[in-house]
Amino acid sequence: MSIALDLLRKEVYEANMMLQEHNLITFTWGNVSGVDRENELVVIKPSGVPYEELSPENMVVVNFDGEVIGGGLNPSSDTATHIALYREFKEIAGVVHTHSPKATAWAQSGRNIPALGTTHADYFYGDIMCTRGLNRDEIAQDYELNTGKVIIETIGKNDPMEVPGIIVREHAPFTWGTSPKNAVHNAVVLEEVAKMALDTAMLNPSIEQIPQNLLDKHYLRKHGKDAYYGQNK
Amino acid sequence: MSIALDLLRKEVYEANMMLQEHNLITFTWGNVSGVDRENELVVIKPSGVPYEELSPENMVVVNFDGEVIGGGLNPSSDTATHIALYREFKEIAGVVHTHSPKATAWAQSGRNIPALGTTHADYFYGDIMCTRGLNRDEIAQDYELNTGKVIIETIGKNDPMEVPGIIVREHAPFTWGTSPKNAVHNAVVLEEVAKMALDTAMLNPSIEQIPQNLLDKHYLRKHGKDAYYGQNK
Amino acid sequence: MSIALDLLRKEVYEANMMLQEHNLITFTWGNVSGVDRENELVVIKPSGVPYEELSPENMVVVNFDGEVIGGGLNPSSDTATHIALYREFKEIAGVVHTHSPKATAWAQSGRNIPALGTTHADYFYGDIMCTRGLNRDEIAQDYELNTGKVIIETIGKNDPMEVPGIIVREHAPFTWGTSPKNAVHNAVVLEEVAKMALDTAMLNPSIEQIPQNLLDKHYLRKHGKDAYYGQNK
Amino acid sequence: MSIALDLLRKEVYEANMMLQEHNLITFTWGNVSGVDRENELVVIKPSGVPYEELSPENMVVVNFDGEVIGGGLNPSSDTATHIALYREFKEIAGVVHTHSPKATAWAQSGRNIPALGTTHADYFYGDIMCTRGLNRDEIAQDYELNTGKVIIETIGKNDPMEVPGIIVREHAPFTWGTSPKNAVHNAVVLEEVAKMALDTAMLNPSIEQIPQNLLDKHYLRKHGKDAYYGQNK
Repeated sequence: MSIALDLLRKEVYEANMMLQEHNLITFTWGNVSGVDRENELVVIKPSGVPYEELSPENMVVVNFDGEVIGGGLNPSSDTATHIALYREFKEIAGVVHTHSPKATAWAQSGRNIPALGTTHADYFYGDIMCTRGLNRDEIAQDYELNTGKVIIETIGKNDPMEVPGIIVREHAPFTWGTSPKNAVHNAVVLEEVAKMALDTAMLNPSIEQIPQNLLDKHYLRKHGKDAYYGQNK
Repeated sequence: MSIALDLLRKEVYEANMMLQEHNLITFTWGNVSGVDRENELVVIKPSGVPYEELSPENMVVVNFDGEVIGGGLNPSSDTATHIALYREFKEIAGVVHTHSPKATAWAQSGRNIPALGTTHADYFYGDIMCTRGLNRDEIAQDYELNTGKVIIETIGKNDPMEVPGIIVREHAPFTWGTSPKNAVHNAVVLEEVAKMALDTAMLNPSIEQIPQNLLDKHYLRKHGKDAYYGQNK
Repeated sequence: MSIALDLLRKEVYEANMMLQEHNLITFTWGNVSGVDRENELVVIKPSGVPYEELSPENMVVVNFDGEVIGGGLNPSSDTATHIALYREFKEIAGVVHTHSPKATAWAQSGRNIPALGTTHADYFYGDIMCTRGLNRDEIAQDYELNTGKVIIETIGKNDPMEVPGIIVREHAPFTWGTSPKNAVHNAVVLEEVAKMALDTAMLNPSIEQIPQNLLDKHYLRKHGKDAYYGQNK
Repeated sequence: MSIALDLLRKEVYEANMMLQEHNLITFTWGNVSGVDRENELVVIKPSGVPYEELSPENMVVVNFDGEVIGGGLNPSSDTATHIALYREFKEIAGVVHTHSPKATAWAQSGRNIPALGTTHADYFYGDIMCTRGLNRDEIAQDYELNTGKVIIETIGKNDPMEVPGIIVREHAPFTWGTSPKNAVHNAVVLEEVAKMALDTAMLNPSIEQIPQNLLDKHYLRKHGKDAYYGQNK
């Protein structure tokens, strides 16, 4: 395969290992993918393989129809969800799925994670939405594809890069980003804000989203043309 | 003793050590056993021995009447519970008991751990039941055997492999599986879903079990003849 | 000094270091002492010294009047509380004070930690009592001594070895035991049962103490003349 | 630059690294500064630089107008808040900002962290105040400076050294102290008491501040002319 694809395998491998370093996963409950837009190929973790056996070489390459290219292991059972997101949102280059515990608790509760402070606003420009549950037919047939579709339906006309993550009802979070590692970064942040929001809701059950102008301030301080956070002026 | 029994001692030892690696235990508050079905022998952790002193050699062998075979240390005080489960359920080959904190909190609360999401459904095909409390007579005489009996009573006509764990009221969890290590795997998952379910119940006190068809989908995706998770097609 | 005292210094040092290994302390917020009954001497951690600078040699020796023997550092500011307990309860040989977070939360709430399960019953033969708060005079004069007196008042006619720990209202836990290390063991257990009880109270706010016969069973399984847990038959 | 400034860079660097050791930060979500009062210079962490790339040399020096001295990286985006505090409170020599999770949950809830026990009273002589939220104009223009101003407004006529920390509403905690490392010490304590107070509020929702005389006793035991905690008599 191409050098570009080898580099992508390496990054996807490293991004998968980051899930473990950041304590986002138990056993094999997570997966990261990356996309090669030019060739419409997705590189993703193999299904159910222990983290200590992962390597750049056993990352699985699939095309946009989900077919494995060049042999190898079975891809993650959630591959169809990842592909649906890459097909719909041209600007994303990495997707992450975990069952990180605090975000999963929100997903199980059926509630959006509200933007309750600047930690949230620094990364997510509004509430992190909880999708509706899938209906009987969506579960019975093409479940993983339909998981992608319900994510896309929930995002609707919003910009997926402004809130680069979502929680799927009764399931768990998905995040995305400008690269596989950036998507992992967003998964770490989502878990952290989910944790803080849960404690906040215990302390103040009637708490509501922060004012829009504070949300604007913090999000735009780090993102967009007038950003002044960091070293990239 | 036989080579088969030596191998079982080794696996039971390793499975006991996994309890510590997965942070399921404080001090000696847990035990794993395995069974040799052919000879009706159970290998189990000795009672009250610190984890750093455990070895394959000091795992204790008992027969189905609970008698120690070939000398050695006292077996776990919970041995009679383990044996009761092996006698009743021919399909199980490993049993684990811990006081892992979140599962124990549910056991103390007297509530079943409801199936609130796909993390749960991937391993447990329905609620994780909380047994009734033991009565005065059951506590006074043959307490550990009666703990096994109340577990068996609670499972009733259900398949113990479909929900490979239970919480004993006012006590703590027991799990089982196709091997000692598989039973430990289930103990890790039970603690994780107990943690998520507790947080979910805080966020949404009226939350109920997920729909049966979602439970079917996730459980059967990993288990049974049409499973498509992992590499074992 | 005597060899016996040197051994006691060593054990008190090691017991203090165990507080850190078991994550019971932040900075220097804890102290362990041991007693030499024959000479009525107490060995205790020096006040406010970082854990990495502790050694058997800088443990402080005081007599039952709280006077430092043989020079050295200032003893823990809580020394008078430790001595009060040694004076009152002849059967205890080690005392521990920490601000472990879950036990401290119960102390701050003013509630007893109820015996909600067998984890508790294995070590504490009944509720872990929360003392009353000290009154204005008790705080103004001889505060640390009065902290000891209010602990003794709360224990009353009960056997201090049956419930080897207490939480001081608006303050934090104290535990004791048959040796400094045994007292640390009890401090670890107290924190663990405080954690479980807190989660249990969230899941079931009206929960009450387990039945007396279950409390008897578990406590007496590990303690007393008919104990059958462990290897010391 | 001067030797004094080199020493300050080193301490500020070390104090920033302590944030990570004490688990107060995720990614780069925190910053520590120190002040050179003689020359009215502030040394602070650069903005958005990963912790593994920090060194004494890349700490940024700014004057009291926020201008970078001697080139180098961009200072933390929160620099104006730090400077405002140094300008107002002559007695402080170090400032810390983190998004530590429990303190941030309180900040997001809009509630003061009440003084509920002696752990709190040992360091903070009263409630840890939550500021009001910034208004539209304060957010739109000079946001970070206004964050400093609202902290100063909240402290009012109180002594900033008696309660060396605050939580900014919908944002996160700031602490300060007699040196950069002392400010980090206070940030650790603030997170710890925030955690304990949250659990206490769950156990007893109507809990109120401890009596003033207990607050006096513990605070003055460690601070002020009659302090008797530690070795510095």
